[in-house]
Amino acid sequence: MKVRRSDRVRSLVDMPGTPPTRFVYLGPEGTFAEQALRTVPAAEHGSRTPARSVGEALDGVRAGDADAALVPLENSIGGAVGVTLDEMAEGEPLVITREVILPVDFVLAARAGTALAAVRTVAAHPQASTQCRGWLRDHVPDAVVVDVLSNGAAAAGAGSGEYDAAICAPIGAARHRLALLADKIADHPDAVTRFVLVSRPGPPPPPTGDDLTSLAVYIAHDRVGALLSVLMELAVRGVNLTRIESRPTGEALGRYVFFLDCTGHVADVRLGEALQGLRRVCADVRFLGSYPRHRWVEAAGERPVPAPAGLSDVDYADAAAWLARLRSGELS
Amino acid sequence: MKVRRSDRVRSLVDMPGTPPTRFVYLGPEGTFAEQALRTVPAAEHGSRTPARSVGEALDGVRAGDADAALVPLENSIGGAVGVTLDEMAEGEPLVITREVILPVDFVLAARAGTALAAVRTVAAHPQASTQCRGWLRDHVPDAVVVDVLSNGAAAAGAGSGEYDAAICAPIGAARHRLALLADKIADHPDAVTRFVLVSRPGPPPPPTGDDLTSLAVYIAHDRVGALLSVLMELAVRGVNLTRIESRPTGEALGRYVFFLDCTGHVADVRLGEALQGLRRVCADVRFLGSYPRHRWVEAAGERPVPAPAGLSDVDYADAAAWLARLRSGELS
Amino acid sequence: MKVRRSDRVRSLVDMPGTPPTRFVYLGPEGTFAEQALRTVPAAEHGSRTPARSVGEALDGVRAGDADAALVPLENSIGGAVGVTLDEMAEGEPLVITREVILPVDFVLAARAGTALAAVRTVAAHPQASTQCRGWLRDHVPDAVVVDVLSNGAAAAGAGSGEYDAAICAPIGAARHRLALLADKIADHPDAVTRFVLVSRPGPPPPPTGDDLTSLAVYIAHDRVGALLSVLMELAVRGVNLTRIESRPTGEALGRYVFFLDCTGHVADVRLGEALQGLRRVCADVRFLGSYPRHRWVEAAGERPVPAPAGLSDVDYADAAAWLARLRSGELS
Amino acid sequence: MKVRRSDRVRSLVDMPGTPPTRFVYLGPEGTFAEQALRTVPAAEHGSRTPARSVGEALDGVRAGDADAALVPLENSIGGAVGVTLDEMAEGEPLVITREVILPVDFVLAARAGTALAAVRTVAAHPQASTQCRGWLRDHVPDAVVVDVLSNGAAAAGAGSGEYDAAICAPIGAARHRLALLADKIADHPDAVTRFVLVSRPGPPPPPTGDDLTSLAVYIAHDRVGALLSVLMELAVRGVNLTRIESRPTGEALGRYVFFLDCTGHVADVRLGEALQGLRRVCADVRFLGSYPRHRWVEAAGERPVPAPAGLSDVDYADAAAWLARLRSGELS
Repeated sequence: MKVRRSDRVRSLVDMPGTPPTRFVYLGPEGTFAEQALRTVPAAEHGSRTPARSVGEALDGVRAGDADAALVPLENSIGGAVGVTLDEMAEGEPLVITREVILPVDFVLAARAGTALAAVRTVAAHPQASTQCRGWLRDHVPDAVVVDVLSNGAAAAGAGSGEYDAAICAPIGAARHRLALLADKIADHPDAVTRFVLVSRPGPPPPPTGDDLTSLAVYIAHDRVGALLSVLMELAVRGVNLTRIESRPTGEALGRYVFFLDCTGHVADVRLGEALQGLRRVCADVRFLGSYPRHRWVEAAGERPVPAPAGLSDVDYADAAAWLARLRSGELS
Repeated sequence: MKVRRSDRVRSLVDMPGTPPTRFVYLGPEGTFAEQALRTVPAAEHGSRTPARSVGEALDGVRAGDADAALVPLENSIGGAVGVTLDEMAEGEPLVITREVILPVDFVLAARAGTALAAVRTVAAHPQASTQCRGWLRDHVPDAVVVDVLSNGAAAAGAGSGEYDAAICAPIGAARHRLALLADKIADHPDAVTRFVLVSRPGPPPPPTGDDLTSLAVYIAHDRVGALLSVLMELAVRGVNLTRIESRPTGEALGRYVFFLDCTGHVADVRLGEALQGLRRVCADVRFLGSYPRHRWVEAAGERPVPAPAGLSDVDYADAAAWLARLRSGELS
Repeated sequence: MKVRRSDRVRSLVDMPGTPPTRFVYLGPEGTFAEQALRTVPAAEHGSRTPARSVGEALDGVRAGDADAALVPLENSIGGAVGVTLDEMAEGEPLVITREVILPVDFVLAARAGTALAAVRTVAAHPQASTQCRGWLRDHVPDAVVVDVLSNGAAAAGAGSGEYDAAICAPIGAARHRLALLADKIADHPDAVTRFVLVSRPGPPPPPTGDDLTSLAVYIAHDRVGALLSVLMELAVRGVNLTRIESRPTGEALGRYVFFLDCTGHVADVRLGEALQGLRRVCADVRFLGSYPRHRWVEAAGERPVPAPAGLSDVDYADAAAWLARLRSGELS
Repeated sequence: MKVRRSDRVRSLVDMPGTPPTRFVYLGPEGTFAEQALRTVPAAEHGSRTPARSVGEALDGVRAGDADAALVPLENSIGGAVGVTLDEMAEGEPLVITREVILPVDFVLAARAGTALAAVRTVAAHPQASTQCRGWLRDHVPDAVVVDVLSNGAAAAGAGSGEYDAAICAPIGAARHRLALLADKIADHPDAVTRFVLVSRPGPPPPPTGDDLTSLAVYIAHDRVGALLSVLMELAVRGVNLTRIESRPTGEALGRYVFFLDCTGHVADVRLGEALQGLRRVCADVRFLGSYPRHRWVEAAGERPVPAPAGLSDVDYADAAAWLARLRSGELS
């Protein structure tokens, strides 16, 4: 009985610290999304179900049929994944609890025994072949690239012998028992996709000192002035942006939603003050979660930016103590 | 001989007012991009060649093999088309000379004589079927949706009898002589795609009083402060933003590029002053063109926002005259 | 014994609500400062001692020889009273507990029986005669104006018969039993002087909903940027300025102190948040008191400016409650 | 005939480069104002007439009875000289052509043969005795200080034998043939007064690379927002403030005038752009002159602040050239 199962799941999830056990991800199997999900420890011990679309994955979480969904948020080549942003901004609230940044390590895979020189047809999702254009031209200039609908489908096609080789994710090659003819064949070696793990609302994961907070911020009409106000609310509290994107809301002409990723955690004094400011000056603000920043190997050199002068936690505590003294009349 | 042909084309294009005659667009045939191109008068009398990718289309213009390329820039559902932004921001400069905003009027089309009740299979690009999910559930709940690689391929599949029906653009239905079982079947009736016509650099089209200017703006490190500076440069000149998106440049960690669409024309005093300001405070600014704003029927109610108090062209002229008097010493 | 008296006074003052009983004011007797002090109810029942200078008056309070000092802060004609600002900004802290705005109602006064036509000599402080220049020219064009050192000295001189008449405050005329030949003779009929009542630090008077807070704010070097930061701290909390003045500190070149009067009370959430922000971004901030705004008759039409959209106390409470919900995970 | 004389003077003054020959200054003789005027080379060869008040001095220039007036603008101890600001902001326009910063070197002077130990009475203007309070207490603790109306009157009183000694300016001692008992007796050794030389409007003195521009800026109602706009106009052009003061205009409640001193010259591109911006966003702007910054000996260490990154003249020229290229279509 569906309702009772949902209820049971909710009560489990509402207990802070209860890890999710039933995961859904943007399918099909054998794509980068599945590979990203495998980096989440809890997912190794839980169930992992592919969904046909981002909407289906998130609706599964909303309905209580899954505890968490792993979906792509942005790709360093293709940009924001609009459908994920829209699905997060609308409908019943969901929150991001984790980000997973995965290098887009495209491989060229084929059935065992296939030599690179013998490859005449390559199955690939159009975005994948576009990102490997230079490599293909240099290494298999005479192969015909056949468009297929996903990286997983490309691997399956090579596995079944329909095509000589496939551009796919390493996980797709493994799943279809393909051998690697080449790896890291993308023209942009640093390309990454940023996935997020999304759950129903609950207490956010504890602050780590290097967290991000995602927001959907609605502002009206005069966009420069309104956007300046938003940035001033952040700037005066020393909150940095790591991403900003605008999208029309579709609800009314001249109304926009900005997706912001800010440094800091909702539990921080500084970000808390900034969030209250945004709440006051914006038409609407939807909180999309606070979660640890994922620092993958290639980005090891990128350190968290220290708080600007006067905006450290120590400065905040000092100012609060000073105000308390003023209010009590103890000036000296 | 390729080189000479390119040279000849360039000399023609360099003559202001010479309209482009050879057009390329993001293919295949029968998609919304072709439909958008057909709204450009000059394209009706010129050649129209589909390209396999945005990169191929733009490179064709860069090489002089085409005079102008029509490519998608953003979609009100799917968001920015990252590959177009990246291709415009890198490589040899290109400029936008026109925008075309096209309603995404998905239709359900089938061979003549097919009744809606008889439809068992529907060919559709995954983005198209996603955007029509509600309609499909309500009207053909039992039909199987088969993923294909483009709206044009869907129409072709229905035309050949492989599938009972197709979700496609009106132009795709017409090209394959399909009858319309239903039109405007998208769940978001106001969905639009914004295409741009891109040429090699040349004098921009003359100002119309309701123009847009597109920019790629590079800023460094501290993003709130730097972005505040950018917005202040615009705000103090009364220049409005209609779009802002951030993307990592990939060149170095912590370096970002913002794509901005601003109100105004590079020939305007006000925007000219703002552009100079951006040039001074940003790490780099790439000008992507000034062009008339396209006002399509559904947006008829959206008027150009009048200049804020003190920032009209009259105010600019008054202030310039006043400064000239100050400098000459004629105060009274 | 001085020390014990001071101690006793302090303990009284430290008890909130204990009204001051020993007042000092900028002398001599018979000037506007005494007249302003007489508008303070507690001063009617306490002692009122003239001081030779602002510094002497304030030092008397610091030493515990007086409970409160009434000194001029600014004059609508002469501007800020620099010595008062400096004395407040340096030395042991003092706080403003009340402001008194007094119309500068200069009168022409003479001994009983003197007719206006018979006035040949007019004693006046140079600032007073300057402010009445037009009236003197029109009504006693042939009288000689003799400079004296204060409005009180002018009245005394007329009372002793040394001069035929005096320009003075009404209280000076009354004290020396002079008759009024004319009143409201100042050329600017709306001229006012703003006095402040200053005490040793203690809990501020309770908020009234229409309060001012005075600050001395020290900023370093780059003055536009630093001053912009100060104003942004106020603006994002909807705190208005009613006065701003800059003075060099004298301590070091390029270091400045700004005297600000802001709307709001240190006990208000909004101003409290702004004060903490100033504390963090400024080199130093000295709190000079929160006190009710004095609304005198002539200014009856000037209403307190309502909080900007999104910045009312209700908005602050709403935002705080929202943040609490976010932190607890109760989003819906 | 007065009118003709004015006309003649005006025609002389209107010829750029014609130096003023008839000077007026705030009297009486023997004060710091006269001393300041003596530092102006042209004044050594012209006539020097004391005026009874700032208003009289400036009106003399307006009427053509003098070519230039030297009046105090601010004092590092006493603050702005309100009457000078008001007289500059109202009535027929006048412009500052030069500033003179004079150390306030108070001396104790007496007739020849008077020993310090024999001084029983000291004549002094109240502001002078206030500024020398510490010295008097330490060196002549038993002397009676007698208030007089000006530093010049103090010197005269000592010269006539009415008082034993005088606190006065060095020039006052010299004029009355007094000997110096002590010099630099002010408690703040760095105190200075800033005088300005004011003329009828004409071409400003040529830029020197280290100039100041004075403005009276009128803004309406919401003071933080309006003042933020003013500062943003300056900040985005890298114009620094060296002074800001607010005064109520008296014309209408809630209307204020700000007196600003900015770095730069009206002939500079950067300041010119900022001035135009102020003209557009302010209720009114009155230009009060561009003139070389006076760098006196004590301030020798204070260098002109270099333009912020991106705001040098070279940056401005680069940006202008870039914009010209954009407008012509030459992007590459």
